[in-house]
Amino acid sequence: MSVGVAYTLTLRCQIENRPGMLGRLTTLIGEVGGDIGAIDIVRAERNILVRDITVRVQDEQHGEQLVAAINTLQNIKVLQVSDRVFLTHLGGKLATQSRVPLKTRDDLSLAYTPGVARVCRAIADDPEKVYALTWKGNSVAVVSDGSAILGLGNLGPEAAMPVMEGKAILFKELANIDAVPICLRSQDPDVIVQTVEQIAPSFGGINLEDIAAPNCFIVEGRLEESLDMPVMHDDQHGTAVVVLAALRNAVRIVGKRLADVRVVVNGIGAAGTAIIRTLIEAGVGEITAVDRFGILVEGDHARQTPMQRIIASQTNRERRRGDLAVALRGADVFIGVSKGNILTPDHIRVMSSDPIVFALANPIPEGDPDMLRQYARVVATGRSDQPNQINNVLSFPGIFRGALDVHARRITSAMRLAAAEALATVIPPEEMNEDYIVPSVFNRQVVPAIAAAVAQAAIAEGVARRTHMPGD
Amino acid sequence: MSVGVAYTLTLRCQIENRPGMLGRLTTLIGEVGGDIGAIDIVRAERNILVRDITVRVQDEQHGEQLVAAINTLQNIKVLQVSDRVFLTHLGGKLATQSRVPLKTRDDLSLAYTPGVARVCRAIADDPEKVYALTWKGNSVAVVSDGSAILGLGNLGPEAAMPVMEGKAILFKELANIDAVPICLRSQDPDVIVQTVEQIAPSFGGINLEDIAAPNCFIVEGRLEESLDMPVMHDDQHGTAVVVLAALRNAVRIVGKRLADVRVVVNGIGAAGTAIIRTLIEAGVGEITAVDRFGILVEGDHARQTPMQRIIASQTNRERRRGDLAVALRGADVFIGVSKGNILTPDHIRVMSSDPIVFALANPIPEGDPDMLRQYARVVATGRSDQPNQINNVLSFPGIFRGALDVHARRITSAMRLAAAEALATVIPPEEMNEDYIVPSVFNRQVVPAIAAAVAQAAIAEGVARRTHMPGD
Repeated sequence: MSVGVAYTLTLRCQIENRPGMLGRLTTLIGEVGGDIGAIDIVRAERNILVRDITVRVQDEQHGEQLVAAINTLQNIKVLQVSDRVFLTHLGGKLATQSRVPLKTRDDLSLAYTPGVARVCRAIADDPEKVYALTWKGNSVAVVSDGSAILGLGNLGPEAAMPVMEGKAILFKELANIDAVPICLRSQDPDVIVQTVEQIAPSFGGINLEDIAAPNCFIVEGRLEESLDMPVMHDDQHGTAVVVLAALRNAVRIVGKRLADVRVVVNGIGAAGTAIIRTLIEAGVGEITAVDRFGILVEGDHARQTPMQRIIASQTNRERRRGDLAVALRGADVFIGVSKGNILTPDHIRVMSSDPIVFALANPIPEGDPDMLRQYARVVATGRSDQPNQINNVLSFPGIFRGALDVHARRITSAMRLAAAEALATVIPPEEMNEDYIVPSVFNRQVVPAIAAAVAQAAIAEGVARRTHMPGD
Repeated sequence: MSVGVAYTLTLRCQIENRPGMLGRLTTLIGEVGGDIGAIDIVRAERNILVRDITVRVQDEQHGEQLVAAINTLQNIKVLQVSDRVFLTHLGGKLATQSRVPLKTRDDLSLAYTPGVARVCRAIADDPEKVYALTWKGNSVAVVSDGSAILGLGNLGPEAAMPVMEGKAILFKELANIDAVPICLRSQDPDVIVQTVEQIAPSFGGINLEDIAAPNCFIVEGRLEESLDMPVMHDDQHGTAVVVLAALRNAVRIVGKRLADVRVVVNGIGAAGTAIIRTLIEAGVGEITAVDRFGILVEGDHARQTPMQRIIASQTNRERRRGDLAVALRGADVFIGVSKGNILTPDHIRVMSSDPIVFALANPIPEGDPDMLRQYARVVATGRSDQPNQINNVLSFPGIFRGALDVHARRITSAMRLAAAEALATVIPPEEMNEDYIVPSVFNRQVVPAIAAAVAQAAIAEGVARRTHMPGD
């Protein structure tokens, strides 16, 4: 499977200036498996040409092999290797900007002293005015402790920054929200909670990100309790909202109803837990939860975390015991948030008719998508190079946009269910098919649709400070 | 004294549509003391005209008087009052922006998953890379507890936000630094220190702001100790750097040397303390510190804070006792960071020849500037509508720019002295005069001059991670 542009190198090569040299070079690149994108001349001298050759490779090792192979050629030398991913990140991806002019003394008097003093007093007199007169009403802190960065594990706060900056620019691009990456030194849930409580006055919402289970449950729960603003752990709820939206459309395609299907969720970390809770809230018929020790059964307290005990009490009514294969017997849906390549054709053959398989492990799905499609009716993955990508980029911008628009005091489960419903219905019934159950992350209808639904749900639940939408 | 555009109102008036009505209105506005800027027609109907009239007033009360006066006129009614300061602040003054495109799937693969994972791993392998590959190398947290907002006092974190946003946009506009306002819930110095330590991995520097004395000394000292990055309380050092720069030029004008002058500093809060310490470091001959209880004398421990005891031990070698008038006898320089209208002509008459008076209390200086200029040779204030404005906007952008450029581990006193020297020399000797001892905040030479000097000083002191400047 291709990883697209994520491994694109630009090789600056010094080549002896005589006929046939470029051909030798491009032939070799092809033989080593590189995919040439562009060839530019940087400098031409009498005896030497310097060319930039842009090549897609499989991974870092493959890139190194390619460079080594080129350097074995006589009269050709790689001077420099630039990597598009690293070039994109140079100097960071995020910046601030002023929304007001600051060119003259008058500008300064209005935006800073002495004018600003009156705005400070107005907020001191009526603290709710901070929403209208500062960026608080439109800003989100993207908070991580770096304990579960993507699929990479616990790399700490500095290494988490590129992901949080990436989320911040997605917030801006997709939902016009001003988001700031805040990576914390400590991974102690008490310290995380205290720190976020301290910085909360400056922001309109808190997006928790890449915090490992079970700390993520503790941190999110306590912050929801103590803060009077939207708080959401995206790895949990952002994912669960997109899964629910995709599942709504998938069951529709196979002619089943949510209330009738049995869903096997494999992997009970942050995402798996939230998916299970969300599916229960959405009225899914029956759920079987599986982790690496097998099916979660009520009463097996010794091996269960507090969160797993709650889940065990709400799932597996048949009290099945066994491994994933046992769980999948007769199941309508498989949702994997576990690890790569654990599914075999035999697993899917024992499922009910028209199996629905969401193999969401990243970067390698629970089963090869081509294989899965041979046995299942609807297949979704987390990959951008496959149809039906389950990507929480589809949900978090719209959820926070809607919550901020009405100055919501929290994000409730009704708001998340409304978000899933809105996301599912962005695809018109006549366009929906096995390979099109979720919209593209670049579909411009997604954020407004989710935001409107979330805002309405917040108003209906009484957690909105504003009871009309801006522009109404 | 005018406060410029800081009190500019736009009055939307409904006026009966017949001759003479506008004249009646403008005459009344003039009588009440309003200064009309512009008159626009919003809507003309058969019997009614709606006009927007922009008027400068003295202060809020004056604006209310004006509106009340207009509403006494027959057939004229104020429909709405808009205020330029509040319009400027609507929705906040700060926003984020993406530095990379995010329009296509390829863009997403480079800036977010899967590409970003390689950048995370690169930083995990070599944490210093966080400076090059994220915004850390160019970002500053502007941190306040809202305990001493401008001259307004303790208004709390929400009311502090407009000032911190103002600083953030000044950082961007003047020094291209990405700054984020962080207003904290607690005013406990332990909590402030812990919180800043927690969020520090996300930023390249910490600008402390509007934290009351003595907590500001505790917080700054402990953060300088624990963090390996530039930390500066701007109310202390930003002000002190500009004062020193101005003083360098002022003594030059009167033909004296820093080493020979005696300076009276009135007011020993955050700014006064830093000014005294900086002047001592700069080699000023002698300093007399005065607060509301009189001259600070070594040994009067009962009435002194720990910081004041240090100051007392380094100042007032003559061991004078008494009030400000006693302190000023024979002094060359008065620097006030205290409160408005405490200086009389008699105070200045007892000073040495060619008195230098910096009356920096805000918004009302220690003495009326026109009066001061009758008795003193050089007068500076904190006001933008007077010559020689001592404004820390002149120093903090350049100091942080220089510190970030070399990834400084801290801001040392040598770096601050270098900043003051650089700021002073932005004014060429041939242009310098009694009314021009500091450059304008809009002088585009200021930030590069300070930044270069600060960076060089950091390198010379061995606190720079980078030992060459970008672009060298």
